[in-house]
Amino acid sequence: MRFATYTAATETFYGVVTDAGAIALSPEFPEWPTLREVIENKGLHTLAQAAQGRDVTHPLDQITYQIPVPRPEKIICVGVNFPNRNAEYKDGQDAPPNMSLFPRFARSFTGADRPLIRPPESPQLDYEGEIAIVIGKGGRRISEADAYDHIAAITLCNEGTIRDWVRHAKFNVTQGKNWDSSGAIGPWLVPFTAPAQLDDVRITTKVNGELRQDDRTSRMLFPIRRQIAYISTFTTLVPGDIIVTGTPTGAGARFDPPKFLKPGDVIEVEGEGIGILRNTVEDEA
Amino acid sequence: MRFATYTAATETFYGVVTDAGAIALSPEFPEWPTLREVIENKGLHTLAQAAQGRDVTHPLDQITYQIPVPRPEKIICVGVNFPNRNAEYKDGQDAPPNMSLFPRFARSFTGADRPLIRPPESPQLDYEGEIAIVIGKGGRRISEADAYDHIAAITLCNEGTIRDWVRHAKFNVTQGKNWDSSGAIGPWLVPFTAPAQLDDVRITTKVNGELRQDDRTSRMLFPIRRQIAYISTFTTLVPGDIIVTGTPTGAGARFDPPKFLKPGDVIEVEGEGIGILRNTVEDEA
Repeated sequence: MRFATYTAATETFYGVVTDAGAIALSPEFPEWPTLREVIENKGLHTLAQAAQGRDVTHPLDQITYQIPVPRPEKIICVGVNFPNRNAEYKDGQDAPPNMSLFPRFARSFTGADRPLIRPPESPQLDYEGEIAIVIGKGGRRISEADAYDHIAAITLCNEGTIRDWVRHAKFNVTQGKNWDSSGAIGPWLVPFTAPAQLDDVRITTKVNGELRQDDRTSRMLFPIRRQIAYISTFTTLVPGDIIVTGTPTGAGARFDPPKFLKPGDVIEVEGEGIGILRNTVEDEA
Repeated sequence: MRFATYTAATETFYGVVTDAGAIALSPEFPEWPTLREVIENKGLHTLAQAAQGRDVTHPLDQITYQIPVPRPEKIICVGVNFPNRNAEYKDGQDAPPNMSLFPRFARSFTGADRPLIRPPESPQLDYEGEIAIVIGKGGRRISEADAYDHIAAITLCNEGTIRDWVRHAKFNVTQGKNWDSSGAIGPWLVPFTAPAQLDDVRITTKVNGELRQDDRTSRMLFPIRRQIAYISTFTTLVPGDIIVTGTPTGAGARFDPPKFLKPGDVIEVEGEGIGILRNTVEDEA
């Protein structure tokens, strides 16, 4: 079952997506304005039931994907989380004892099948394929053992980055990670019901069909259970919060010479059991 | 004129604050649920008019301040922005060409007169007194010349920090800057109507009456106009967004030995023409 937020004509809906199209369900649940409120009220199952036996409302070619949770309270990204990623920085520093974390604003992401925007200020738009989790049950100081109970759904992220702006300043990657529509989340949410959906799944990124990133979640330096435990030590997680769990080695900046994205490129982030997040690239108008 | 968000009994209001108390105005403007929507609709002046000649609704001793804009889309903090702040890091690095930026989540801040929370995980709760601006007119790639036209109001921030968690990981200060209720914003918003309110105003921080930080906005390495221009290069600023503009030298971590906050301490951040943001410290229950 796949749940998406999308626009058809000028209206935004959420609903269930099938191979034929989208079944719009938001008109029937006015008490839940977005998938955030659906998740907050444990409503994904209710939506699934409501979609049973229903015809498609909007064929696929009429829908424009939005990021699945349009206004999460927090989007937190985990950096440097796969083997060899620390070495890629070539700064002679040992791997750190704790995970690197940075927030991204929702407006730095667009939906599936839409263009990532390369701004005139930099030619260094880069991809990072990742699996993202959506918090269902909030909490603080969640134990690793309980962590999976707090996940409502999983999705994919192209954690697109303006590479030269990442190290613009003394600390923090903020400005390289928050260009409007420089990344994408989607295409949909897949409900999380079994540990096997996250424990050892393959994540790949292709650019114009060429495999650039290829790894498995089982090799994360900081596994997802630990991410939830660590992050919730300092901040209360709430329903709809998104954690972007880290990218494998092989982003464009790591090649010599670097392979940055250019207009017309097609990037496909694939997560086993989740789907494919496909985006193109456009220069900002 | 001072605009605040506050709780009285169990209900949250916004309104005008005088020396006698608060005039609740939110009940009369249901179309503007929070000060964010007021600002979005250029409504501060309308509120001021509505408050004319009105009696106080809630005496001061009955109100609990909340952060003035309860759910801003973004809170962006500027780091290392006063003379000698870079040297305080003692890492031998030159001052950077661009400002350091990091987001904070709204839940990392509490309101005026309320306790900052020291968590059991660290004894290193530290203060940072700062002036904060609230965006009125949104925009992208705002010029320095136009920047002040985009500010609706100013307020104060104690950008409270769990110091040892700031450098927990390879990059980014995220986890040291986002502990629930570790900082404060308030007590109120002062409408921004003249450059003199920001160009050269004194900002001080006292702990238990002892002056710890004392500087002037005119000495910022990256002035507020430049902050707005730089930040809006990569992200669209929207009404209600808050920029926390940087702290002078003299945080507790910079003393030898460090002077971290402990339960019972009283911290007062004062901004010339804005007021005093006062908070106590409590250990987490």
